[in-house]
Amino acid sequence: MANKLKRLLIGKPLHNKEMTGEKLPKWKALSIFSSDALSSIGYGPEQIILILTVPWAITYGYAWYVAAAIVVLMGIITLSYAQVAKANPGGGGSYSVAKNNLGESASLTVAASLLIDYTLTVAVSISSGTDAIVAAFPLLIDHRMTLNLFVLFGILMLINLRGVRESSNAFVLPTYAFVFSILALVATGVFHSLNNSLVILPQASLERQPLDWTILYLVLRAFASGCSSMTGIEAISNGVPVFKPPEVKNAQLTTYMMASILVAMFAGVILLIMQNHLLPIANTTMLSQLAEATFGRHLMYYYIQFSTMLMLYLAANTAYNGLPPLLALLARDRYMPRYLANKGDRLTFNNGIIFLSIIAAFFIVIYHGNTEHLISLYALGVFLSFTISQTGMVVHWYREKNSGWFIRAFLNCCGAIITGVVVLIILVAKFLYGAWLIFVAIPLIIYVFKCINSHYKDMQSQLALLSADPITSSGGGNIVIVPIAGTTQVVANTLRYAREISSRVIAVFVATDKESAKTMEEKWIKWNPGVRLVVLYSPYRSIFGPLFRFIARVESKKGPLDYITVLVPEFETHRWWHRLLHNQTGFLLRNLLVFKKNVIVAVVPYQLQK
Amino acid sequence: MANKLKRLLIGKPLHNKEMTGEKLPKWKALSIFSSDALSSIGYGPEQIILILTVPWAITYGYAWYVAAAIVVLMGIITLSYAQVAKANPGGGGSYSVAKNNLGESASLTVAASLLIDYTLTVAVSISSGTDAIVAAFPLLIDHRMTLNLFVLFGILMLINLRGVRESSNAFVLPTYAFVFSILALVATGVFHSLNNSLVILPQASLERQPLDWTILYLVLRAFASGCSSMTGIEAISNGVPVFKPPEVKNAQLTTYMMASILVAMFAGVILLIMQNHLLPIANTTMLSQLAEATFGRHLMYYYIQFSTMLMLYLAANTAYNGLPPLLALLARDRYMPRYLANKGDRLTFNNGIIFLSIIAAFFIVIYHGNTEHLISLYALGVFLSFTISQTGMVVHWYREKNSGWFIRAFLNCCGAIITGVVVLIILVAKFLYGAWLIFVAIPLIIYVFKCINSHYKDMQSQLALLSADPITSSGGGNIVIVPIAGTTQVVANTLRYAREISSRVIAVFVATDKESAKTMEEKWIKWNPGVRLVVLYSPYRSIFGPLFRFIARVESKKGPLDYITVLVPEFETHRWWHRLLHNQTGFLLRNLLVFKKNVIVAVVPYQLQK
Repeated sequence: MANKLKRLLIGKPLHNKEMTGEKLPKWKALSIFSSDALSSIGYGPEQIILILTVPWAITYGYAWYVAAAIVVLMGIITLSYAQVAKANPGGGGSYSVAKNNLGESASLTVAASLLIDYTLTVAVSISSGTDAIVAAFPLLIDHRMTLNLFVLFGILMLINLRGVRESSNAFVLPTYAFVFSILALVATGVFHSLNNSLVILPQASLERQPLDWTILYLVLRAFASGCSSMTGIEAISNGVPVFKPPEVKNAQLTTYMMASILVAMFAGVILLIMQNHLLPIANTTMLSQLAEATFGRHLMYYYIQFSTMLMLYLAANTAYNGLPPLLALLARDRYMPRYLANKGDRLTFNNGIIFLSIIAAFFIVIYHGNTEHLISLYALGVFLSFTISQTGMVVHWYREKNSGWFIRAFLNCCGAIITGVVVLIILVAKFLYGAWLIFVAIPLIIYVFKCINSHYKDMQSQLALLSADPITSSGGGNIVIVPIAGTTQVVANTLRYAREISSRVIAVFVATDKESAKTMEEKWIKWNPGVRLVVLYSPYRSIFGPLFRFIARVESKKGPLDYITVLVPEFETHRWWHRLLHNQTGFLLRNLLVFKKNVIVAVVPYQLQK
Repeated sequence: MANKLKRLLIGKPLHNKEMTGEKLPKWKALSIFSSDALSSIGYGPEQIILILTVPWAITYGYAWYVAAAIVVLMGIITLSYAQVAKANPGGGGSYSVAKNNLGESASLTVAASLLIDYTLTVAVSISSGTDAIVAAFPLLIDHRMTLNLFVLFGILMLINLRGVRESSNAFVLPTYAFVFSILALVATGVFHSLNNSLVILPQASLERQPLDWTILYLVLRAFASGCSSMTGIEAISNGVPVFKPPEVKNAQLTTYMMASILVAMFAGVILLIMQNHLLPIANTTMLSQLAEATFGRHLMYYYIQFSTMLMLYLAANTAYNGLPPLLALLARDRYMPRYLANKGDRLTFNNGIIFLSIIAAFFIVIYHGNTEHLISLYALGVFLSFTISQTGMVVHWYREKNSGWFIRAFLNCCGAIITGVVVLIILVAKFLYGAWLIFVAIPLIIYVFKCINSHYKDMQSQLALLSADPITSSGGGNIVIVPIAGTTQVVANTLRYAREISSRVIAVFVATDKESAKTMEEKWIKWNPGVRLVVLYSPYRSIFGPLFRFIARVESKKGPLDYITVLVPEFETHRWWHRLLHNQTGFLLRNLLVFKKNVIVAVVPYQLQK
């Protein structure tokens, strides 16, 4: 039944042969990989204004400068990542770049920051998506958390467990609907202002205090927060293998397309926000305010809110396309549990998908879906991995020295320096607002990676075969211990098998009172099965303690080559609920023995027929 | 570590010899067994007034009549239960009486209603105790549920898992403190009214409409609710074996003492409520109002509230003294899972204690700690078991026909008739207020009892040994299947054992892609362990499916006397967290095989050293 439910939810298993079919054309790939970057329009511009409208300073007029700096940065990062795609056709993006060019420490740092980023992408995007719909329907205010968790587990996790091709289909329409809605909003706003011969920007949106250290700090914080609009630009370079051939070229073209759309939307939205001189209001978003100011609360307004919500939810999906393959790479390199590299029924990295969902749920729950606090950490992690991968690219081009390597290296060097400066800016501007956490989290994650790695290495050395000899009997004997609870068919069945595999069989009975000890000895004599019985008296009524001590005693007396086998008699009930009527001593015993003792544990099951 | 925590919470294990020491003198036994009955002063009188103060009728003046009827009923039931204690020195109370005198159906009905009652005792008493303390400290209003569950699991369950002697010590002081506080309240109230030459009862408390059918129905409902003050009178007769010898006499004396205190407190509280003409108010209790009116919000008021709270919490404890032994009796008669009859480390029926706690928590949570709705069900269940056990007593005396049997039988016959009438009254008066549930719950529980019983009977017949022959080898062989995941020390270790117990060994490898299938075959040839390897290709990447099908194939070809043994190679990690790094295929495989297949499953563990 559990199996049927699984089939219903995630579909029938896919054959290995169906693997190659999962390649995407550009227009589809764009809709999957760009959702993170494009959807940041839903919260990025707002973050800038939020900081520039503190009550104690007049700084609204700096918004335009901050926005311009961000647009320039977007251009540089786009060019840099188009190169990353070229250098790493195998996917894996920043992590692969760092690993191949800068070594273990850098690559693990990138992996740790990507791990944080992808998880925060899910948390931030889902929370923001819910904010968008709550702005339109204030009735939902008290149900945010339920909505968040439903979207996470009920929609995103399931869609991704079904596999990449189907998830791309789910994302095409919403992405283009969102792009259309924001561009329509911008166009209508601009048309309005030209038509009504409004001033382009009202005086209130241009006012600003002169720059001093305090104000500079504020502007830098606004910039740092605004950088969250850039998260997701790297997504395509991590997913090159999913493109149709020629993979690299298609991935690069898609990166450019995405960046152009992003810049147009970002600049347009900031312009309109300033034109309407919007200020932050609780329980609504700036995009909602803007849509309401432009269209009124009519059809178009709801269309924008709805498509923004969808887009943000789907942005969370970028992480599902990015993190599980990264986890699989880490698992193959033995920095994460190996099962994260297994492909599931539907050819997806299902363990990684579930892992991501659980960690993201943790962030959503502890931050109560409040995006503002998450964003500092988020932007910092993203730019840290940008910087490292750009540095790696410089090393890469230098090593390869193909034609034109110098220009490429120079371009990436600029990228590395600029993103490095951004990292410093975010660190300084946001240190007290959560960025310090990165100093705890990243080293901790790297430490975990290394612990895991050293465990696997230890294990490999211990498990390796030393010789190529055929297996022969050890020459020792096999002492079989059968713990029994009475004289029944189950016990007879087990003893029969015991006699089959050894001539040295001991039955053990643990009596919790003296009377039952005597009764058992009498019954045994009467039955006379030809096997020695040892009765242990347990005045504290524990079963396992005396039994384990008995096994230890046998262990200490056995020959060095002798095996000890514990045979646990167990009956399997006919109906599942019958299990509830029996204490699970057999189940517990065999699992405890495997866990605690160096003996062979076997179960001889006896099937009840009714 | 889990073990240390357990020791800290419930104490060191007790030796079987320490069993006999757990006997109680009267004054201690009174404090344990009477807490249910006495504490009902905390909600019983209030329930009467609650119904007689509906806005559409003037019926306050009937309270005195209802109270008088209840006092008379208390006397009759006390006399009846003193006789039950005499007839059943082995404890078990109503259930034993019904079983020995009326047969299975009656005894199971009693068991089902006691099961409901004890559970509701816990739920009602804890909720009422919390109400008492919330009345004194209104700040706690929003934390009722947390308080309820903490008291249930953190205090009552733990104390009871520690064992009966220690729990009696915990209950002596609070019980006598409560009795003193209520008697002091009554005495002070009466003294005040005499001293200040007030009228004994104000006119407002005596007003009443003439009796018609509607009013009669209301008065009967008040009576039915007031009967909840009588719950717990039977407790002592179920616990006779815990008394010091002479057990029966001591138990009877204790019953009389308890009933006298109960009647004094009940009559006194009702008198004072009427004297002050108290009316129900939300978020406070009548006892709190009474204490405030008598002493003001000073030390004495808080003392009364606090001791009432404690007393009610401890009343829940009566159920812990009553239900686990009843469950053990049912388990011995094979109507409940047998492990409910096991005594734990501390000589308590620990499984029964945990069972009761979980079910009571369920009631507290679904009723949000609202007592009013629980009480109808509660009183009905109690009186139903009263009636059946009184009927059983009549049969008992008739069968024994000792000297004076006729008087005893007559007394119990009166008891049976009167309690039977009360059952009818409660049923009619409360049918729509929840009493109908009893018609669903009791038959359902009886059905479960019978299902369990028939399972145990079926099992017994299947497990019984048919002959007393010595066990000999079946004469068949033993086919050993070893599922492997690579060529490692773990596998070599397992194959070595396989060769020890059989000469027919097959290693099986499930390949999830064609390449790994080929690699494995090459490795095997190179290793050359002298064992046949079967490689199964699994294009859908499932491991268990192909393996189970292979086992089924071997099963269909084997001789009728051959065993199939599946040896699962498993390594045990050095540190517990290392387990998280490995998929639990071995663990899953062995448990699935035991559950699903009729083969012997064995684990050959390989201990990693670091």
